Amino acid sequence: MSLIRGRFQKDAAKEVKEYTCSLPFDWQLYSFDIAGSVAHAQMLGKQGIISSVDAKAIVRGLKAIEKEIEQGKFEFKPELEDIHMNIESRLTEMIGEAGARLHTARSRNDQVALDLRLFMKSAILETFENLRSLQKALVQMAEINFQVIMPGYTHLQRAQPVLLAHHLLAYFEMLQRDIQRFIDCLERTDVMPLGSGALAGVAYNIDRKYVARKLGFTRISENSLDAVSDRDFIIEYEAAASLSIMHLSRLAEEIILWSSAEFDFIELDDSYTTGSSIMPQKKNPDVAELARGKTGRIYGNLLGMLTVMKGLPLSYNRDMQEDKELLFDTVDTLLSTASIMTGMVETIKVKPNKINLALDKGYLLATDIADYLVKKGLAFREAHRKVGQLVNWAAEKGKSFSEISLNDYRNFSPLFEDDVYLITHETSLSARNNPGSTSPEQVKKAITAAKKMVG
Amino acid sequence: MSLIRGRFQKDAAKEVKEYTCSLPFDWQLYSFDIAGSVAHAQMLGKQGIISSVDAKAIVRGLKAIEKEIEQGKFEFKPELEDIHMNIESRLTEMIGEAGARLHTARSRNDQVALDLRLFMKSAILETFENLRSLQKALVQMAEINFQVIMPGYTHLQRAQPVLLAHHLLAYFEMLQRDIQRFIDCLERTDVMPLGSGALAGVAYNIDRKYVARKLGFTRISENSLDAVSDRDFIIEYEAAASLSIMHLSRLAEEIILWSSAEFDFIELDDSYTTGSSIMPQKKNPDVAELARGKTGRIYGNLLGMLTVMKGLPLSYNRDMQEDKELLFDTVDTLLSTASIMTGMVETIKVKPNKINLALDKGYLLATDIADYLVKKGLAFREAHRKVGQLVNWAAEKGKSFSEISLNDYRNFSPLFEDDVYLITHETSLSARNNPGSTSPEQVKKAITAAKKMVG
Amino acid sequence: MSLIRGRFQKDAAKEVKEYTCSLPFDWQLYSFDIAGSVAHAQMLGKQGIISSVDAKAIVRGLKAIEKEIEQGKFEFKPELEDIHMNIESRLTEMIGEAGARLHTARSRNDQVALDLRLFMKSAILETFENLRSLQKALVQMAEINFQVIMPGYTHLQRAQPVLLAHHLLAYFEMLQRDIQRFIDCLERTDVMPLGSGALAGVAYNIDRKYVARKLGFTRISENSLDAVSDRDFIIEYEAAASLSIMHLSRLAEEIILWSSAEFDFIELDDSYTTGSSIMPQKKNPDVAELARGKTGRIYGNLLGMLTVMKGLPLSYNRDMQEDKELLFDTVDTLLSTASIMTGMVETIKVKPNKINLALDKGYLLATDIADYLVKKGLAFREAHRKVGQLVNWAAEKGKSFSEISLNDYRNFSPLFEDDVYLITHETSLSARNNPGSTSPEQVKKAITAAKKMVG
Amino acid sequence: MSLIRGRFQKDAAKEVKEYTCSLPFDWQLYSFDIAGSVAHAQMLGKQGIISSVDAKAIVRGLKAIEKEIEQGKFEFKPELEDIHMNIESRLTEMIGEAGARLHTARSRNDQVALDLRLFMKSAILETFENLRSLQKALVQMAEINFQVIMPGYTHLQRAQPVLLAHHLLAYFEMLQRDIQRFIDCLERTDVMPLGSGALAGVAYNIDRKYVARKLGFTRISENSLDAVSDRDFIIEYEAAASLSIMHLSRLAEEIILWSSAEFDFIELDDSYTTGSSIMPQKKNPDVAELARGKTGRIYGNLLGMLTVMKGLPLSYNRDMQEDKELLFDTVDTLLSTASIMTGMVETIKVKPNKINLALDKGYLLATDIADYLVKKGLAFREAHRKVGQLVNWAAEKGKSFSEISLNDYRNFSPLFEDDVYLITHETSLSARNNPGSTSPEQVKKAITAAKKMVG
Repeated sequence: MSLIRGRFQKDAAKEVKEYTCSLPFDWQLYSFDIAGSVAHAQMLGKQGIISSVDAKAIVRGLKAIEKEIEQGKFEFKPELEDIHMNIESRLTEMIGEAGARLHTARSRNDQVALDLRLFMKSAILETFENLRSLQKALVQMAEINFQVIMPGYTHLQRAQPVLLAHHLLAYFEMLQRDIQRFIDCLERTDVMPLGSGALAGVAYNIDRKYVARKLGFTRISENSLDAVSDRDFIIEYEAAASLSIMHLSRLAEEIILWSSAEFDFIELDDSYTTGSSIMPQKKNPDVAELARGKTGRIYGNLLGMLTVMKGLPLSYNRDMQEDKELLFDTVDTLLSTASIMTGMVETIKVKPNKINLALDKGYLLATDIADYLVKKGLAFREAHRKVGQLVNWAAEKGKSFSEISLNDYRNFSPLFEDDVYLITHETSLSARNNPGSTSPEQVKKAITAAKKMVG
Repeated sequence: MSLIRGRFQKDAAKEVKEYTCSLPFDWQLYSFDIAGSVAHAQMLGKQGIISSVDAKAIVRGLKAIEKEIEQGKFEFKPELEDIHMNIESRLTEMIGEAGARLHTARSRNDQVALDLRLFMKSAILETFENLRSLQKALVQMAEINFQVIMPGYTHLQRAQPVLLAHHLLAYFEMLQRDIQRFIDCLERTDVMPLGSGALAGVAYNIDRKYVARKLGFTRISENSLDAVSDRDFIIEYEAAASLSIMHLSRLAEEIILWSSAEFDFIELDDSYTTGSSIMPQKKNPDVAELARGKTGRIYGNLLGMLTVMKGLPLSYNRDMQEDKELLFDTVDTLLSTASIMTGMVETIKVKPNKINLALDKGYLLATDIADYLVKKGLAFREAHRKVGQLVNWAAEKGKSFSEISLNDYRNFSPLFEDDVYLITHETSLSARNNPGSTSPEQVKKAITAAKKMVG
Repeated sequence: MSLIRGRFQKDAAKEVKEYTCSLPFDWQLYSFDIAGSVAHAQMLGKQGIISSVDAKAIVRGLKAIEKEIEQGKFEFKPELEDIHMNIESRLTEMIGEAGARLHTARSRNDQVALDLRLFMKSAILETFENLRSLQKALVQMAEINFQVIMPGYTHLQRAQPVLLAHHLLAYFEMLQRDIQRFIDCLERTDVMPLGSGALAGVAYNIDRKYVARKLGFTRISENSLDAVSDRDFIIEYEAAASLSIMHLSRLAEEIILWSSAEFDFIELDDSYTTGSSIMPQKKNPDVAELARGKTGRIYGNLLGMLTVMKGLPLSYNRDMQEDKELLFDTVDTLLSTASIMTGMVETIKVKPNKINLALDKGYLLATDIADYLVKKGLAFREAHRKVGQLVNWAAEKGKSFSEISLNDYRNFSPLFEDDVYLITHETSLSARNNPGSTSPEQVKKAITAAKKMVG
Repeated sequence: MSLIRGRFQKDAAKEVKEYTCSLPFDWQLYSFDIAGSVAHAQMLGKQGIISSVDAKAIVRGLKAIEKEIEQGKFEFKPELEDIHMNIESRLTEMIGEAGARLHTARSRNDQVALDLRLFMKSAILETFENLRSLQKALVQMAEINFQVIMPGYTHLQRAQPVLLAHHLLAYFEMLQRDIQRFIDCLERTDVMPLGSGALAGVAYNIDRKYVARKLGFTRISENSLDAVSDRDFIIEYEAAASLSIMHLSRLAEEIILWSSAEFDFIELDDSYTTGSSIMPQKKNPDVAELARGKTGRIYGNLLGMLTVMKGLPLSYNRDMQEDKELLFDTVDTLLSTASIMTGMVETIKVKPNKINLALDKGYLLATDIADYLVKKGLAFREAHRKVGQLVNWAAEKGKSFSEISLNDYRNFSPLFEDDVYLITHETSLSARNNPGSTSPEQVKKAITAAKKMVG
């Protein structure tokens, strides 16, 4: 029977043990569990709650166990339910009665909360690194292709010329917000819950701030009932991850579009494409597709955890055990997706000639021509209407702006003069020279700022 | 390099192989994959697309591979990407060139669709069994405790007396609808997609109906583009599972409430409760809590898969590979939760005396007393108002209905007579004697019908 | 004070009245509420629970109220909380005490359940009609453009030639499954709940089957506790709607892609596009974009309702009032989206010449060429590899299949002979002549079957 | 025809106008739209892009329009599609050609982004206020009931004694995190997007920082493509709102439990309860139930918006119009729920005597008794086991801790002495005297800190 069933007359049913067992996933917390127990034992020793001899034995034992696990020599026992009991049980086996003193002034409830927060802090730092790497790859791609003018799109219709670099930096901005959100989440995660006991605190003269310092936490939790039943930091991570994968799904969508035969703006490296089992000619952007598809599971994990917590009375309820698999999956998915997209972006080959062809159709300069009329005195609404009619007429005739004669222009407005032909993709870009706009000057500044930011 | 990279100049990056590899989860499809390949090979042989010698060699080889897998002797190779390539590659290793002919007139796209449908059909049957077992446990509990009258609740406030059996049978009804939904889903799953090729069908004289018959399918798919990009049957299962776990979460909630010290209506068997790491007295309904908590992941998987499919152009896109983990997790979770709740329900000890005490407070007979006045001629709205005032007065005096004197009754309405004292929990129940109501007569009928249904 | 606060000493706070008031949305149920009350009153009269004079007065009154509402003359009073109380209160005002007898043997709980089921049945029929219309538009578009061969896609990469008609019929199939799901949902909705009272049934000699017949229901509910706390039919509709809008989002995505300058396969009618406030040249596929975007709210409503029901103890809880707005929004959104997509599809102009150009690039016949080698005796895997290498070589040389000399072909396999040049898009199509495949013969059959189905 | 259809040959279909029309919901943005246009016009005037006479006329006109709307005199025209066009069209009607110049150097894309950010900033401040008020009500309730000891729960089983005040302050902490999240969201919302044009910036010499200052923004957006297609701030609000309503749902759940006949810890004020249409005795906690139920729609809106944005290519797509209704509903729901829960909490009557009774059963002091043994030298695990056995024995005998004789105690451990009887609920509380724990001293400090925080 379990260590904690003194009050019971029978053991849990086999099926119950399997259903409630968290070892298959919470073993991943082992290093955080051990770090937390080491700090706890040292504090117990320092405060005289256990002897310093016991404290030292515990610390030594825990470090030996950590080594066992890392070397694959540790025997995980599912019947001990979770990673915490596995470690504690092995500790007592190893060092005797002192091991049975480790859980003094502690409950699994605050222990789990501690382990999760340690894990989360570490995962946030990794997330930060991976998103930074992707930012770097985007800036690099922007810089290398600085000369490339492409059609900017709204509604997936060609709209106005923009620099490809400007387009890529839009994703830099999204990732920058993601990073800030993860940093905010880190601040709320950085709270040490141990000492909250099962729910009410513990009846020993403990030193919570000492434990916090040892483990690198900035603050201690303020309310024991809240501390054991709070999973906000997990949900907040999952929400930030949902926004981040959403951004990645947009980038993935564009990579898929751009590498289609119809767009043909880029070529993915062979190492980032896969073949078909039946069609020998295929080179598919599977990586980008999977990245886009993985949006589903990250959204699902967020909603899953929100559902778990809905309407739960205080304090700890076992429902909360569901937090781990959902979180671990979100962290793994976001990290691997950001990482693989970095590699994919780094190896993309841009096709400037093909992109250039795309500028020619779509009357991308229509706004500039309307602005031309405005600058000659027409009210904007009226200029918009005139140029709309002009485009309609030109499209029927199959003419591009440069193919329209001045006479024909003047049929639509007498304000048109020879200088209308001076409007080009290049002048369109350079005219948009306000902060945040697509002129080469502004985009160069943006690249410089971005490079400084990613270091 | 992969079998299917004839067109490529380099291999996929290591990280890409890991990211796109589905073997860690799709190995579970092995028996369905082999069954499908056996039928396909037999059809190819029958149609003369491959020689019958080759067909027989393939079938023999596949059966040997199945045995290897079942005996744990099969060497799974992640670098071969998925279960399909693992099996095909081993087959060719085993039987030579004939193995390389298996994939004739087939694509991974229709092969995966087939495997998933075979898996789904099998999972639906298991789901059916597990829900049926829980229905049986509920009917049995209803029958054993047929005499027990409990407070029926609305808004978690005591409302009117009902039979506990009637309350339990409400869950029987919910599960019955679940079962019907899974059966409907089965019908739409029971469609054989092989022969759809990658997307357009295959250029061989195949016999799709033969394959369907061999594999126990009722129909073949009608449109190849649809067949390879349709995951409706998975989402439909996940939606039915979401409804089903929602029902189980409601039952779990009631089990948690009923085994609280405040309700104290039931006692869970020791084998279905767990202890606390710190509080020696605790016997917690962890199983019910986890069952309730697992609602989150099943909802999340549904939403995850809906998200995956949103806005995907035809036909197959790699995003769809995300279908499997979400589905497998939903199936596992629902099956294990239904199963463990069956065991829990079977071992619940009802506490009739404690339940009986709960009937005494809460003016549960107020509706009957209003109906009493209606039957004496008062309009219902007026009767409702009078009895509302009566309850308000009685609550202030601390009197139950039986403690109110006739004089006091008559202060509220002259229609009250001696027979008001004949209204009891038992008469309240037996008065509700319409089909679907809580009278012992009706509930007995319902139990009989339910028993017949579950066999 | 409210009609039902006899037991209270004060009225609900103003803010509480506003927060709990459902009139702003449940007024939409008025016709169903009145129909239900008419049938209930007739039953009460028939059974002698109220006098037949009262019953007739009630029915007359209710019909007058319905007319008032339809003519915009009814004064809705938010302080009466919901549509049910608004109607009942007006009835009593109109016909006196008889009105106060209407609620005999009924509770708002079973009344609301009835109204919702009547609404749902009607909404399902409308949904059926709208999806059928879209099916018709698709079949018509398929038939008109029967000659058009287009590139079939997987991974948004050109894969194999298919008939545009075949592609369109894939959506026909999806909608067909949607329709079946709604029909299944209808069957489970078609259950008459009245007579369940608040939760326990009612203490009058009612005739539930009479009410069911009057209102066109096939069955009556089997368990009163379940009947008042069951919202499965709503969630099932929302799940079916989620699948359906997912299908529409895929069609919308393709319409957006196809009307981009890059694909240029179709032109949307001016009446189904919108302009830009700043760019005069833009014709945007806003309708398709909005249709795709509305997927979000329908998924959200499904999740919302699943969340509401999670973990609710029996029987009715006020949380359930949230069902209505979510449902109404889903119904409105699905109906309007299906309807507008019908109009959009009906007016699409296909551009066969542009589509034809797209067939030329992408080595769409590679599978056919591999099959060619298979038919000459090569094992499929080997044929796939050879053709992969051939495509790689040809792509570097910039040659299409027809531009490769026989000598060059034979460098890859000596099995190539003159007849390799006989492989064309047309032969590729006609070779795929199994049921469900893209050959003109099969697609013609599919169109015929589809036309028969939509009548 | 619309102002912006110069390029079109026909008007949008009637059904298209209805489907795309956003006026029914975006009219709520009118004051933000006008404020934004005023600042834009002033900037255009200052920069000489329009004449200062025109600029002044525009500002005057816009203010007149604002007054018209506030006084209900403005005629909203759905055929003008949205609030922006309604205002601009009325402006031109009012002031002539100058009105047609307002849209110079601006697009609806950046205009909408601006309006939404202004709305969001205002909504966040309101959210802050409402959550603060609820915090105040909780602190006040904690202070008033400072003496009340209640059973603390884990797994809804009585666990250890805690102060009711400590329990209430757990919610204070949750709301504090919510507030911080909204403040973080505010920071990311506080970015001025105007000047981004349709997607590429505008070709005029504008002064974006001037507009930002005028409108109270701290920063301007850095990338025009991002600025018009970024809805992160909306999703971030919806995610923070989901966490917040989750917290409220937990509080609501406890209020529902506590006001049940079984718990009977509190009584809700009559003004915060509602009656039953059929059961005259009922006083239902509908407000708390609805608050709990509204969790569904807020989660649904979050998922809805995440779904909308998934996989959208840059930059603006019409799908994004779906942002508004989802956001407005979330804001309204959260604000009204927080507000009504404040009123409900303020008027709750705590029943100390009833709560006191609940302390007597459940062996709440078991942890203290185990700690007693630990302090006498036993290892914790062993002490836990002994007390578990003691509780098991006592429960069978029906004895509480105080009813166990010392002899009987000593049967379980010879370490028990007379001072075991000194363990009481009060000593249990005061022994938990570490920061964040439930001792009166700590809780008093927490109340003081909380009061300081809410001001």
